Amino acid sequence: MPVQETLEIVCKTVLEKITPKLEEREKIERLAKTLEKKVAEAAEYFGVKATVRLEGSVAKDTWLSGEPDIDIFMRLPPSIPRFALGEVALKIARKATEGAKQVERFAEHPYLEAFVEGVRVNIVPCYETKRGEWLSATDRTPYHTDYVKKCLRPQMRGEVRLLKKFMKGIGVYGAEIKIGGFSGYLCELLIIHYGSFVNVLRAFAQHKQRMVIDIENHYKGREDELQLLFNEPLVIVDPVDMGRNVASAVQPQKLYTFVAASRAFFKNPSLKFFYPPQTKPLAVKKLEETLQNRGSALIFVVFGRVDAVPDVLWGQLYKSQRSLANLLETNDFVILRHTVWSDEENLNAFIFELESRILPPVKRHLGPPLEKNGDCERFLTKHIANPETVSGPYIEDGRWVVEVKRKHVDAISLLKENLKDGGRKAGIAKEIAKTLNKGFKILVNGEIAEVYTENTEFAKFLTDFLSGKPKWLDKTVKEG
Amino acid sequence: MPVQETLEIVCKTVLEKITPKLEEREKIERLAKTLEKKVAEAAEYFGVKATVRLEGSVAKDTWLSGEPDIDIFMRLPPSIPRFALGEVALKIARKATEGAKQVERFAEHPYLEAFVEGVRVNIVPCYETKRGEWLSATDRTPYHTDYVKKCLRPQMRGEVRLLKKFMKGIGVYGAEIKIGGFSGYLCELLIIHYGSFVNVLRAFAQHKQRMVIDIENHYKGREDELQLLFNEPLVIVDPVDMGRNVASAVQPQKLYTFVAASRAFFKNPSLKFFYPPQTKPLAVKKLEETLQNRGSALIFVVFGRVDAVPDVLWGQLYKSQRSLANLLETNDFVILRHTVWSDEENLNAFIFELESRILPPVKRHLGPPLEKNGDCERFLTKHIANPETVSGPYIEDGRWVVEVKRKHVDAISLLKENLKDGGRKAGIAKEIAKTLNKGFKILVNGEIAEVYTENTEFAKFLTDFLSGKPKWLDKTVKEG
Repeated sequence: MPVQETLEIVCKTVLEKITPKLEEREKIERLAKTLEKKVAEAAEYFGVKATVRLEGSVAKDTWLSGEPDIDIFMRLPPSIPRFALGEVALKIARKATEGAKQVERFAEHPYLEAFVEGVRVNIVPCYETKRGEWLSATDRTPYHTDYVKKCLRPQMRGEVRLLKKFMKGIGVYGAEIKIGGFSGYLCELLIIHYGSFVNVLRAFAQHKQRMVIDIENHYKGREDELQLLFNEPLVIVDPVDMGRNVASAVQPQKLYTFVAASRAFFKNPSLKFFYPPQTKPLAVKKLEETLQNRGSALIFVVFGRVDAVPDVLWGQLYKSQRSLANLLETNDFVILRHTVWSDEENLNAFIFELESRILPPVKRHLGPPLEKNGDCERFLTKHIANPETVSGPYIEDGRWVVEVKRKHVDAISLLKENLKDGGRKAGIAKEIAKTLNKGFKILVNGEIAEVYTENTEFAKFLTDFLSGKPKWLDKTVKEG
Repeated sequence: MPVQETLEIVCKTVLEKITPKLEEREKIERLAKTLEKKVAEAAEYFGVKATVRLEGSVAKDTWLSGEPDIDIFMRLPPSIPRFALGEVALKIARKATEGAKQVERFAEHPYLEAFVEGVRVNIVPCYETKRGEWLSATDRTPYHTDYVKKCLRPQMRGEVRLLKKFMKGIGVYGAEIKIGGFSGYLCELLIIHYGSFVNVLRAFAQHKQRMVIDIENHYKGREDELQLLFNEPLVIVDPVDMGRNVASAVQPQKLYTFVAASRAFFKNPSLKFFYPPQTKPLAVKKLEETLQNRGSALIFVVFGRVDAVPDVLWGQLYKSQRSLANLLETNDFVILRHTVWSDEENLNAFIFELESRILPPVKRHLGPPLEKNGDCERFLTKHIANPETVSGPYIEDGRWVVEVKRKHVDAISLLKENLKDGGRKAGIAKEIAKTLNKGFKILVNGEIAEVYTENTEFAKFLTDFLSGKPKWLDKTVKEG
């Protein structure tokens, strides 16, 4: 079958599945209306002047069947002080969803997540401000909703849904810290700008150095200024706020993954992109065998519960991970890859794949060039009669060099030494350090078997990590 | 004792030893005269018009007691074709030194080395040309002799001797390929320019980026041009040929060694610089123990006689050594140091000290950046279903990456594979390759014991190599 035809069939099949049917739509819309009303009443009950409105994908009719999120915003008067905003809103939200399961969440300020009739509902406060006079990040949301409602033609809603589902499938959807990907609003803007799902993918498949989109021509005649103003590889000027790049939180890794997946999709369109096959974890014997034969060293720093909401948790996990990678590299360990895993509850792990756990015991240590006489004297004084000196000092390429015993030859002991007091000095973030201080395990290769066996999600993650290959990559290119 | 006083005593002691006493001087001068006459007679005998004259350090009275080299030059008419020059000269030289031990040598053209009354005599041909109309490199020599005789005041001869002896002691004296150091003529020019041994050392102790000396002011008013004309870090314009840098063959390594030794000498003047203590080779047991405990891998490529005169031999050894170092580094082996040894007769060895003989079996292989769509497709096609691929391809920092099995994990097998046919493809020079083709051994660490035991000079060399530290460095700085 010609590729173009396959592509059309794939998109049609997916669209059929992800567009809410009448029944589901009616249920969600009814639920949203009810909640809007309840929140408004609760605000009144507490004597708070609030404009309550449905926002988000349900309001814009761009939500995916089976995955509705009802976002109810309450716009509160700027007279409420910032520190009290969350408290006031939580009180109202709790009353409005009395009896439902409630979870306190935190993005820029606290909000409430409730589960009503099996549907996730977010009740979020913001300030009622004029455009441009934002007092908090969420103040823009109602303006975003209005903009999309105005500019997204009804037939484009399916295109937004396709794009969201594609991005979910390849793991680049979601603005939360864990993902660092494309937000729903960003997807809508891309469809408004390019007109269709396929056009968006075509544009990104051709992505070179940078992509800058200014739908509302805020920078008309000042395109040079625009190029200089933002330095991210992807810039989508917010139609409701010319000072903001809607894509500023998109991590390059996610952007590049989207680019590569778009290309692969055109070569060989397939449902895989939208519905990635479930990972079947390797049997634990097979895992041990794989790690054994691989020849590299997989090192796991495993630790327990961290007291932080997901966005904070992931931010600290990523930061700490980078610090540890840096520590290993500074000590000459060669990292093949590294990643981090968390169930956001009781189990966290930093994972490093090293070329080798053990380094050779001797290394070169470059001293100053001969031109720097004073530095040379200090270098010689330090190394000439030093028991750590194995050879030299000698001159090479115009500088003094010594061969010295390596301080850390074992990655495990290096990590242990640096983490024993929580690792703050090694750059471990605060909440993570608190947990590490209570204890952690460092496991190598097959030693991970127990954790692996006890935790299916971790087992899937590790199986995917060992393969390394994106799920959509395999078939597409082999046949292409 | 104050440093300045020690320095003066050291210089005086050395000068005393290296200045030829009357008896030795008379013997050498008589011998030189006799040889001059014999060569002239031999030339006449063969009907060759030749201007025969004593050149070199004996002619300039800058030779070191106990180490005289008598250089007799015969200047031949330009009518003799280049290819015949050596033959004609050898015939004459052989007749002139009949009965003495004779060795044919080769620098730019053949010349004869003879041992007469225990003294080395070099009988060298050149063309009788006007200044600037050089037909061969040695044609300048008589002009050099005349220049030095004219400009070197008698009291400076001792200064030249001190400088030469110092340079010999630290291993930077001699223009031959093996050394790549300072020639006798260069020493004389430095003394003419700076006035004394101590002044030369002081100048080099302060050596920064570059040193450019133009004694005869050939480039007066055109200093900028001079700076651009030569690109070596040390430039001494030849007083008899403004187009030539007398120091062009000085290897940076030798220049920097001289700089560092000069500094060390001022900090702690000592006879060590002029008379380095003999190396006592490590007992073979101690050697094996040292290699064992060191933790690095010493790899020796040992081979037999190479059919080439010393300058050609060393040129080819150095070139081949660089090629092998390059081969190892291209394959990710970390070289701590490498060197080459030869007795110029039956034993040659390339020596590599590696961090590790064995590399980890997996490595990262960086593919093209995402921007290069076509390259990415080729990369993916190549690696996606490749049995050498261990993980990936995956995206990292905007480019495709795979983890692959390393081709060569063992430095020994890498070297063996590349040397088995002589190693021409790996960059081994021609004559060396001929020898390697007949056979070679690759020895690791303690396996060198047999060669070490059988060859004292090699044993000394290896003992020094393992220490790595220049002999003059130890004491000078520790006390400084």
